[in-house]
Amino acid sequence: MTFETTVPVRYRDLDPMGHVNNAVYATYFEEVRTAFFREEVGVDLADSQAALATLEVEFRAPIEGTGAVDAAIDVVDVGTTSLTLAYELQFEGRVVATGETVQVALADGEPTPLPDDVRAAAERHRVE
Amino acid sequence: MTFETTVPVRYRDLDPMGHVNNAVYATYFEEVRTAFFREEVGVDLADSQAALATLEVEFRAPIEGTGAVDAAIDVVDVGTTSLTLAYELQFEGRVVATGETVQVALADGEPTPLPDDVRAAAERHRVE
Amino acid sequence: MTFETTVPVRYRDLDPMGHVNNAVYATYFEEVRTAFFREEVGVDLADSQAALATLEVEFRAPIEGTGAVDAAIDVVDVGTTSLTLAYELQFEGRVVATGETVQVALADGEPTPLPDDVRAAAERHRVE
Amino acid sequence: MTFETTVPVRYRDLDPMGHVNNAVYATYFEEVRTAFFREEVGVDLADSQAALATLEVEFRAPIEGTGAVDAAIDVVDVGTTSLTLAYELQFEGRVVATGETVQVALADGEPTPLPDDVRAAAERHRVE
Repeated sequence: MTFETTVPVRYRDLDPMGHVNNAVYATYFEEVRTAFFREEVGVDLADSQAALATLEVEFRAPIEGTGAVDAAIDVVDVGTTSLTLAYELQFEGRVVATGETVQVALADGEPTPLPDDVRAAAERHRVE
Repeated sequence: MTFETTVPVRYRDLDPMGHVNNAVYATYFEEVRTAFFREEVGVDLADSQAALATLEVEFRAPIEGTGAVDAAIDVVDVGTTSLTLAYELQFEGRVVATGETVQVALADGEPTPLPDDVRAAAERHRVE
Repeated sequence: MTFETTVPVRYRDLDPMGHVNNAVYATYFEEVRTAFFREEVGVDLADSQAALATLEVEFRAPIEGTGAVDAAIDVVDVGTTSLTLAYELQFEGRVVATGETVQVALADGEPTPLPDDVRAAAERHRVE
Repeated sequence: MTFETTVPVRYRDLDPMGHVNNAVYATYFEEVRTAFFREEVGVDLADSQAALATLEVEFRAPIEGTGAVDAAIDVVDVGTTSLTLAYELQFEGRVVATGETVQVALADGEPTPLPDDVRAAAERHRVE
């Protein structure tokens, strides 16, 4: 994939089964998405006026213990007002989850065309 | 839907945009799923030896402030080793998210037939 | 104590030992503090321009499983710019934690006199 | 201080004020404590049969944005069944919090003498 970051697993991420809880995968996706926006677009996600429309996660293997997750994204679609990202999480060299999000640019709570800097960064990382 | 519970929004669920963070929706799904297993099957989810295979969330409206979410589920499919649940979250009388999970019964980390008590509860709440 | 609320334990609150994780106690304190501000002062904590200066928790017994925590507060001191609250958490009729926070009213990041409505609510709940 | 680790701030750590939420400081303390046990004692905290007895945090400055926190600990007391640790968190070169925990070794839920490997590691990092 074309953009990667590393997310250390925290003890707090684990649930009573000793595995990373399912909701935390969404946070790992958010961490690589946040890093992408910060490093490739130059904006804080909090300032980006975007909202998730959909989230999909496929859990392929449990994450046990407290090492680090390698989180990667590709841009799979760039729409007028939305961006579709694909995710892959690896742990100890093994794919533990894949997923996808669609996020929508908002102005006053309504969909609005993607800002030019977001569109430019997305096109640079788009996969065919 | 056929099974419901109420989940109070916590201040900690909110992110810098003042909305419930996307990952927390997975936790709200987990709360109604946990309540279903506890009340309809009679087991703690932590003791149920099941794992999520997939999670899908459609975000329909932001959850702002700290009221309570009404979380509901239907059983949409009962397989040999897996269970497919549909979710709906309402906030202030409005649908704010829908979603679906597939969970798989495990024995020693491998898929195993659903326990009889899980299958019986699932069939009672199955929708056509 | 003079103000109480109930906080359902979430499955996500539990850690690999099957107990509510220590950091979550701070969230339970926050829930009763938030409820106090909302119901007694009439403001959202997010809008109250206050920050915690100190947090102390004494853990008396583990919280196991997913029932509900009864969280209570007393106001123990009302200063010019700060408020000292005492906390007690009960689970299944037993005190599982006590604690204290000092919070400071802020204007532009600097301590400022407590707003009148906060001071009035605090005096109503102050214990000698 | 004598043992340090780095904890990247996550977007999920931030609350509606745009600062790291107070409960998350306890998680940062837990991360450096976990790293200490893993690297200096050689055990996973989840397997260490210890429980927090007290937690104190002094918040000195807000943590804004999503950089990395440098978390450090000293061992300040080694008792028969308990360990007292002091903490310091720095962000962008500035001390943002200090704190202390007392944790107790447990066997069957009752205090028990500290294991020899824990005691040895603690003595190596003890400050006078």
